[in-house]
Amino acid sequence: MSITAPVRTKRAFNFNAGPAALPLPVLERIREEFLDFRGTGMSVMELSHRSPEFEAVNNAAEQNLRKLLAIPEDYAVIFMQGGGSLQFSCVPQNLALAGKPIDVLHTGAWTAKAIGELKKGFLHNIAASTEVEKFTRVPRPEEIKLSADASYTYFCTNNTIEGTQYHALPASAAPLVADMSSDIASRPIDVSKFGLIFAGAQKNLGPSGVTVVIVRKDLAERADKNLPTVLQYRTFIKEKSLYNTPPTFAVYVLGLVTDWIAAEGGLTGIQKRNEGKAKLLYDTIDGSNGFYVCPVEKGSRSLMNVVFRIKSDEALEKEFAKGAAAANLVGTPGHRSVGGMRISLYNAVGQDAVEALVTYMREFQRTRG
Amino acid sequence: MSITAPVRTKRAFNFNAGPAALPLPVLERIREEFLDFRGTGMSVMELSHRSPEFEAVNNAAEQNLRKLLAIPEDYAVIFMQGGGSLQFSCVPQNLALAGKPIDVLHTGAWTAKAIGELKKGFLHNIAASTEVEKFTRVPRPEEIKLSADASYTYFCTNNTIEGTQYHALPASAAPLVADMSSDIASRPIDVSKFGLIFAGAQKNLGPSGVTVVIVRKDLAERADKNLPTVLQYRTFIKEKSLYNTPPTFAVYVLGLVTDWIAAEGGLTGIQKRNEGKAKLLYDTIDGSNGFYVCPVEKGSRSLMNVVFRIKSDEALEKEFAKGAAAANLVGTPGHRSVGGMRISLYNAVGQDAVEALVTYMREFQRTRG
Repeated sequence: MSITAPVRTKRAFNFNAGPAALPLPVLERIREEFLDFRGTGMSVMELSHRSPEFEAVNNAAEQNLRKLLAIPEDYAVIFMQGGGSLQFSCVPQNLALAGKPIDVLHTGAWTAKAIGELKKGFLHNIAASTEVEKFTRVPRPEEIKLSADASYTYFCTNNTIEGTQYHALPASAAPLVADMSSDIASRPIDVSKFGLIFAGAQKNLGPSGVTVVIVRKDLAERADKNLPTVLQYRTFIKEKSLYNTPPTFAVYVLGLVTDWIAAEGGLTGIQKRNEGKAKLLYDTIDGSNGFYVCPVEKGSRSLMNVVFRIKSDEALEKEFAKGAAAANLVGTPGHRSVGGMRISLYNAVGQDAVEALVTYMREFQRTRG
Repeated sequence: MSITAPVRTKRAFNFNAGPAALPLPVLERIREEFLDFRGTGMSVMELSHRSPEFEAVNNAAEQNLRKLLAIPEDYAVIFMQGGGSLQFSCVPQNLALAGKPIDVLHTGAWTAKAIGELKKGFLHNIAASTEVEKFTRVPRPEEIKLSADASYTYFCTNNTIEGTQYHALPASAAPLVADMSSDIASRPIDVSKFGLIFAGAQKNLGPSGVTVVIVRKDLAERADKNLPTVLQYRTFIKEKSLYNTPPTFAVYVLGLVTDWIAAEGGLTGIQKRNEGKAKLLYDTIDGSNGFYVCPVEKGSRSLMNVVFRIKSDEALEKEFAKGAAAANLVGTPGHRSVGGMRISLYNAVGQDAVEALVTYMREFQRTRG
């Protein structure tokens, strides 16, 4: 089916931290079938979530994730709402065992939010923290002091604000529970090492409004049945994420994005590309003779969110962001809580975007350095 | 901006109960700006929720609702996730006062779900129930036995499954709390009579994935601060629904749908049209000499969801639905829990759709009656 594209401005190089860039072929596909979803005479948003057409969409999204992440049979894949912020309370409500603490590896703003929810009545233990080093790295294995009888061990695989990422999994006898919002599906992982993984879709998997939860089915049975029905993982498992009306459009887009990842070589292919993009950017920073400085320890650097300062000069950083925006490079300022610059390099950010960025960085340094 | 529409099948007459029909001009507008949101070079789904562009979208959606529903200043309008099903627990968690029962008017499947959540530890009182009459009407004023000191009085303004609707508000000294998921913005209401109104957007306001909550600000202060942050109304009020990443696309569509309602004459104009559509359908049923039978008492009939049986004959009803689908009339079967037929006539369902339906109904009766 051929369509005539509307007159439009140049597509931005989008380094937003999430919601973030989506693959152009996915956007074009959505647009193409937007008024008539596969011959139904309706937009996908107008389908009943109980229709066979939407059930196929829902199943495809689940199956795509299962295949991409090689998710074992004893794990459920469910689609919830509320983002990571709801999971911060949902996980302990479902998985905490009486008298058994939750071990937490504290690595920045997102684990701080999770800890904030644990403080509302859940026994927990900060098993490691890199706060004294301003979260410029993730904990080393020997620093992690786990409880003997933890309910689970909680960590955040990639810290969007601090620009850190685990490149090896922490060891834990208790089930590992990961906030993987900002690096899910960016590299292969061994799901069998986890008890539960959650991720808002809005970075690597789709638009905001849908949260992926991958949970070992037996762990979902820990939850008290007096927990609100719609906050129990078992409800979503039993009803295949159709207990209540799901965010149908977001699930549909997630299905298309995961189709696209598969077509791009799956997680191995995506990882290779992500490594190449990050290397180009880190090399530019490290080769700038101190004009650009990444505060993150090399072994903890994130492939997803690259943070750096420009001579620790806020005025210069503002100028950088302004000039970047004028050069069609969107989303370069760091999180409002830390300042500096942050470049998000999620799956859908192309090599061309990073090349345009480093060209701009070199020119900026040449004229302001 | 002119676009060439793709080859497509005929647009369906969509009587789905939700997600449901959306206005065609809204769908066309979304499609038109889908790849480049207002000159940003990004899809609206790719915008940061912290960007000025999305803040404008978020504000417009709120302001549209404020204007359409004439919402007083002392009420907040917030956008949450999780649908009505999350509100069933969220409302009592936020609004229940110690020792003061929640009065509930029980009118069918949706209030049953809300009661199910109250049974998990909230003091409550069934102040009225029409269960013995199979929920074929809403309670009469004299049947409602309110507590002297209720936390609030809870009811569902329109019962999608049973096809009933309140045409006058129940009297209550305690704040009225309404599940208005299936008739919000279908007729003018006096918001000042309510303490809280919630509604999933997927019937009259937009796609699934966003829940509108209108709450008197002082009531939001009842909540225990130990409740999960993302389940406290005050969090959303304080952060203007941007505490965490909102379902940005759904909020955007809600803004466009409310623009459309305003352009169609606002709630007064929409109500008039909704009354006309419902009258045509009820007249067809009532004029069928008992071939079609609506079980709902006339004073409680819903303008949104018209339910009827066909000679109480399931085989005939199946045949009706099948023939309807072949005639491009989608979504006519009743809810799987009650059977029969159900025709949803939300705002975006046109008079033309109802005319096509009654033409089909007359022909069906002529050949099968």
